Amino acid sequence: MEHLERFLEEDIGYGDITTDILVPDVDGNADIVCENDAVVAGLEEAMTIFEDHGIECGPCVNDGERVKKGAVVMNMSGPLRNMITLERTALNIMMRMSGIATATNDVLTACRKVNKNIRIAGTRKTTPGFRAFEKKAIILGGGDPHRYRLDDMILVKDNHVEAAGGMKNVVELLNAASFTKKVEIEVENIDDALVAAKRADIIMIDNSSPAKAGEIADAVRKVKEITIEVSGNITFENAPEYAKFADVISMGSLTHSVRSVHYSLNVR
Amino acid sequence: MEHLERFLEEDIGYGDITTDILVPDVDGNADIVCENDAVVAGLEEAMTIFEDHGIECGPCVNDGERVKKGAVVMNMSGPLRNMITLERTALNIMMRMSGIATATNDVLTACRKVNKNIRIAGTRKTTPGFRAFEKKAIILGGGDPHRYRLDDMILVKDNHVEAAGGMKNVVELLNAASFTKKVEIEVENIDDALVAAKRADIIMIDNSSPAKAGEIADAVRKVKEITIEVSGNITFENAPEYAKFADVISMGSLTHSVRSVHYSLNVR
Amino acid sequence: MEHLERFLEEDIGYGDITTDILVPDVDGNADIVCENDAVVAGLEEAMTIFEDHGIECGPCVNDGERVKKGAVVMNMSGPLRNMITLERTALNIMMRMSGIATATNDVLTACRKVNKNIRIAGTRKTTPGFRAFEKKAIILGGGDPHRYRLDDMILVKDNHVEAAGGMKNVVELLNAASFTKKVEIEVENIDDALVAAKRADIIMIDNSSPAKAGEIADAVRKVKEITIEVSGNITFENAPEYAKFADVISMGSLTHSVRSVHYSLNVR
Amino acid sequence: MEHLERFLEEDIGYGDITTDILVPDVDGNADIVCENDAVVAGLEEAMTIFEDHGIECGPCVNDGERVKKGAVVMNMSGPLRNMITLERTALNIMMRMSGIATATNDVLTACRKVNKNIRIAGTRKTTPGFRAFEKKAIILGGGDPHRYRLDDMILVKDNHVEAAGGMKNVVELLNAASFTKKVEIEVENIDDALVAAKRADIIMIDNSSPAKAGEIADAVRKVKEITIEVSGNITFENAPEYAKFADVISMGSLTHSVRSVHYSLNVR
Amino acid sequence: MEHLERFLEEDIGYGDITTDILVPDVDGNADIVCENDAVVAGLEEAMTIFEDHGIECGPCVNDGERVKKGAVVMNMSGPLRNMITLERTALNIMMRMSGIATATNDVLTACRKVNKNIRIAGTRKTTPGFRAFEKKAIILGGGDPHRYRLDDMILVKDNHVEAAGGMKNVVELLNAASFTKKVEIEVENIDDALVAAKRADIIMIDNSSPAKAGEIADAVRKVKEITIEVSGNITFENAPEYAKFADVISMGSLTHSVRSVHYSLNVR
Amino acid sequence: MEHLERFLEEDIGYGDITTDILVPDVDGNADIVCENDAVVAGLEEAMTIFEDHGIECGPCVNDGERVKKGAVVMNMSGPLRNMITLERTALNIMMRMSGIATATNDVLTACRKVNKNIRIAGTRKTTPGFRAFEKKAIILGGGDPHRYRLDDMILVKDNHVEAAGGMKNVVELLNAASFTKKVEIEVENIDDALVAAKRADIIMIDNSSPAKAGEIADAVRKVKEITIEVSGNITFENAPEYAKFADVISMGSLTHSVRSVHYSLNVR
Repeated sequence: MEHLERFLEEDIGYGDITTDILVPDVDGNADIVCENDAVVAGLEEAMTIFEDHGIECGPCVNDGERVKKGAVVMNMSGPLRNMITLERTALNIMMRMSGIATATNDVLTACRKVNKNIRIAGTRKTTPGFRAFEKKAIILGGGDPHRYRLDDMILVKDNHVEAAGGMKNVVELLNAASFTKKVEIEVENIDDALVAAKRADIIMIDNSSPAKAGEIADAVRKVKEITIEVSGNITFENAPEYAKFADVISMGSLTHSVRSVHYSLNVR
Repeated sequence: MEHLERFLEEDIGYGDITTDILVPDVDGNADIVCENDAVVAGLEEAMTIFEDHGIECGPCVNDGERVKKGAVVMNMSGPLRNMITLERTALNIMMRMSGIATATNDVLTACRKVNKNIRIAGTRKTTPGFRAFEKKAIILGGGDPHRYRLDDMILVKDNHVEAAGGMKNVVELLNAASFTKKVEIEVENIDDALVAAKRADIIMIDNSSPAKAGEIADAVRKVKEITIEVSGNITFENAPEYAKFADVISMGSLTHSVRSVHYSLNVR
Repeated sequence: MEHLERFLEEDIGYGDITTDILVPDVDGNADIVCENDAVVAGLEEAMTIFEDHGIECGPCVNDGERVKKGAVVMNMSGPLRNMITLERTALNIMMRMSGIATATNDVLTACRKVNKNIRIAGTRKTTPGFRAFEKKAIILGGGDPHRYRLDDMILVKDNHVEAAGGMKNVVELLNAASFTKKVEIEVENIDDALVAAKRADIIMIDNSSPAKAGEIADAVRKVKEITIEVSGNITFENAPEYAKFADVISMGSLTHSVRSVHYSLNVR
Repeated sequence: MEHLERFLEEDIGYGDITTDILVPDVDGNADIVCENDAVVAGLEEAMTIFEDHGIECGPCVNDGERVKKGAVVMNMSGPLRNMITLERTALNIMMRMSGIATATNDVLTACRKVNKNIRIAGTRKTTPGFRAFEKKAIILGGGDPHRYRLDDMILVKDNHVEAAGGMKNVVELLNAASFTKKVEIEVENIDDALVAAKRADIIMIDNSSPAKAGEIADAVRKVKEITIEVSGNITFENAPEYAKFADVISMGSLTHSVRSVHYSLNVR
Repeated sequence: MEHLERFLEEDIGYGDITTDILVPDVDGNADIVCENDAVVAGLEEAMTIFEDHGIECGPCVNDGERVKKGAVVMNMSGPLRNMITLERTALNIMMRMSGIATATNDVLTACRKVNKNIRIAGTRKTTPGFRAFEKKAIILGGGDPHRYRLDDMILVKDNHVEAAGGMKNVVELLNAASFTKKVEIEVENIDDALVAAKRADIIMIDNSSPAKAGEIADAVRKVKEITIEVSGNITFENAPEYAKFADVISMGSLTHSVRSVHYSLNVR
Repeated sequence: MEHLERFLEEDIGYGDITTDILVPDVDGNADIVCENDAVVAGLEEAMTIFEDHGIECGPCVNDGERVKKGAVVMNMSGPLRNMITLERTALNIMMRMSGIATATNDVLTACRKVNKNIRIAGTRKTTPGFRAFEKKAIILGGGDPHRYRLDDMILVKDNHVEAAGGMKNVVELLNAASFTKKVEIEVENIDDALVAAKRADIIMIDNSSPAKAGEIADAVRKVKEITIEVSGNITFENAPEYAKFADVISMGSLTHSVRSVHYSLNVR
């Protein structure tokens, strides 16, 4: 709720000077309508915002459900001024979270057709200050949040490998890691992949075409049962190509370049 | 800087457990490269982040400048660990702000061809917690930030008009407004527009086709020299149609559905 | 409420060591009495403080109402310890806010006799950390809060004019201002006033005698219908002189040098 | 500094939109001039604010010194924009703190003429959120800050005595107090004073005329060497009457109803 | 509660990922059992934590009471997930506070046998960030919290005496102290003690054997009725030796090296 | 540093009223001496505190090094007042962190004699608000921090198993876990251990004697190469018994019941 309070403060400042002058201090009713086909997300956060200001909320769907354009997702009743003052912040949260949940679910659905165990994961390419909500939206869309923070998992990237002086050093240095953490290592060729697989729980194949990535995955799996993640320039179009052989597909665009879902709040 | 600290905390948590193990405690050099044709934004914030952790930064462009894909936008030197740990947060800020600045500038450039005085403005449809940065990005792209908060200006929307009991009541009630605030009133037809114009400094024509909006604008201007803003479902494609007669075009998509610009940090 | 919590923390520290030892853990009743003729303000804040700690409050007047010395403004019942512990913070808020509201209303009443449309406004000369409450008190006294922050309105002062290289430059540079903001320009002579009026929504005549200020106001109004504000060394005594021709009178003394209203909390 | 940052944020919001447009990004010089005869206070806080934003400060006096109207109290050089943006917050701190320091020193000077050991003390009737600065101003004026918080000292007021069931109970219950705390007890008659003196380190005689208070003080001192404080409705005029026999005079008006000292910042 | 929220955030982060997956969203019942003979402390804080998350709590004992190993100290009913998620933070508070309360009470009980008026006090050797709770635990164990902060009391230590140039200077300089503060002075020999006693309210005899400390105490008491505190290397074993002559025994080990009391939360 | 600022604020309040009166405003020198044989920890934090207040620090050892009683661990020079005011907070951090590091290292050294690959780990039984420092101290002592937060790893405890309806359900439900998280499952018998091992990365054998725990470990290892952790009632004395077969020994007493290391700050 502390986050939500801060969001409200960001939008409201010293007060909603328009509403205070024009809207009478009475109770009213309103609906929130979804203006696109979408997976709903952020409804729980919107309810918290409204309920914390004396508005009774009746959700018509649950976060994570698919709705059609025009669906009423929530009814509300309570102080009319508060509804109007809180509207923008509540809808801003819903529109972005629903956009992310919908995109995640779309790509998941497409990839499940070729691999029913595929996982679609986010990345750390989130909007600063809003990550918790974006990761939650990915989960609501059926995806895997991946790392929330740098302390979540060991994830070795190309800059790390270079700084460590090569993959063999990486494998050795990783003895210092806590036993509680999984180790994921990013590779771009088979040689590195085979060295990395000795220590890693997960191999991430980065920036490779489906064909090349598939080759690396095959080579690694011959020597070890291991989770294979692909990442880098994966689009809604080519994701199913990767899904044929990968366990996890991670896509930064799910959070950094997503199209929002539109909602409107209609006072009845 | 308080915002930036919070963003770092969000990403780092208890520490960058990968970098601490694999990267030696030495100084290094790196470049930040822009991977798209874009208007750069967020460079100042990235510099603050790096410099606050002992890294010397040499920017190659200024925020607000256009660059070509592949352009180096900043050189850095200093503690290698810090560069790698801070990379993601710094780039997340840059990628989103640059996406917004670029989109703003693209539509501005297109609209200036038909109206050299046109203003492209944002809305309050921003990512919660990141509004200050998104508004700044709009300015860097040549746009007008519009309201930062509900207390910035009186902006009367349809829900307000209905709650007040019609446009005439609105005009009367607005006598209570502080003399320091501009008054903007949203209208969807000529009748309301003419009543609203008696009190308003700005008329916002909402959700109307270019043709219909143009008619309303003409009708209002016949009786009063006034600023005309159009808003609602304006796209990159149809914006110039509105620019022919409007003073201000505001577009929520500049912040709620923008495509990020890609940057990479390359250790040399 | 976050502000109010901080105020309580400032006063209470680790606990009310006197009350904890001497006052039994029982419920009680108390009244808050106003010890001066005054406009009441801060009652809402006091109620929030008491109610958040389990005390039921029955207000006898509304914020903004005038009361006579000796008037009971609120009844309370609930945990006796909390009443006594919270008393000082609650009354500190009420005494200062009521002092400001009363002073604002006194000068407004005096000025309304010569100009029924006059506005009495505050300034940014407020107590750091308490501005929101002082601005609210001005409104409760019938005044206009004027700017809450530097980002509220363009207000050009003498230092700005000088730094910009004269009033003509000011007018030109102001093209860069957001269309959402009113522009107010401070002047001390007719020449500057006439140049400023081309761009300004409001002219502020600073530090001028009523006679001189009246002359400037007349000269400006001949060329443009515009709001005239006077400011600088305006006292409760000479304010009505300015009210004869001004639209707005702003007075820093309303917040920086006001006499508090006394209240006492009497346990029954 | 955390307090000062919050004060700046309160005043600046998203930015000084006037200065950003009109003032060139150059260095400049300025003076701060005191516009009244006064004891200077708040200079240290003002310096911290300016220096934290790249402005070099050369103070001409120390906090706590008396100056004549027109005295330059500080020179500054550095970024001109920052000077103008920070001016109001810095001066707001100085004007209020100096007002308090001056009033404290004025009454101290008057009372010292009749009792060279007299102490002038503040109370907890301070502006919420600004107490630390107001207490410091009292010290700079030569006064004693008295309690900062409720946990500073045991101070038994009439509501406590009543709630405890009389002064004898008070004295007994106070055995539970920490040995680290002084005990002060408020009395309004000789009988209570004599009972209270058995346990108290300080007797506060409240709301009594100089004559009556003097009688109580004499009666107590006959039985115990003890500190005598007077409080309640003490004015700048009658304070010396109390100083004849009291050790400490505490005055709420030093903080709740003080006249600010004026300062101006002049860019050269 | 702000402290408690921060403690929860420290433990929970983005969520209890184990409980969210494995525990159904149902209500349940649980007990908290004390696994040692102990003085209970922290129960109030634990209740606040659970109740703020929808769990009804029925305490079986009060903070400050002694219980036997195996005693149920609280029943709970409510959302099962919340119980399990909040368990660790609540028990961490209880286990440390109870450890401190128990140790304080143990030494108090032992010392009361030789001096029924003895006070056992804490020091400032507390865990950073947790002091308020540790001081409260001392009080619950029957002890005196001593200073909460450096601004609570004047306490002159050896470094102060040396920096001031000897005990005579100390006594003189202390005239500048507020009349509201007690003065305690640390001494290690009779000469200093006799000088210090002229000004001090409390003499602290530091790092001395019971015999030597007793001599100093006697010497001081011959000239002044004064509180005597002993401190430094006092153990649970030798404390009663000091209790024979001291008024206060302060022990850092009560907070810096205490053994926690064990509690378990059992879902029924 | 935000944590450290809060710790200082907790200790200092409105100011060090003793030092301000008694210690001249001059520079001085001091040493910090370790009063026990110990592993040093917290030196980095102490340095940050002192250096942030203008004191130059010269560390004589690194955090994590063993020193003998009497060793000087740091020299300092700078403002004498600041040294004395900051002393307690700095030493409180050092004494607790060093106590934890020393205890961790002691048990590690003892266990390494029987198993050179053994890991000694902490638990979440830390002091609320101080966990980051206690986990760091464990690392400095050569240990493994284990979970920082509930979101770090899936760790299934007895309450989870019961709530999920048995171990088979647990294994199935865990399919919903993120692929980025390790899974640890607590068991108390062989049957559960064999089921748990199908899904777990780590088996935690809780509250079992060395003999029984060893049996479970053997049974599990026969079917899967897996990490074995033991926990519950492990003491400094019996830890090596567990080390014979376990990979990880976790001990809550390392943080909840540790003896602090003593340090003194001596002004020269």
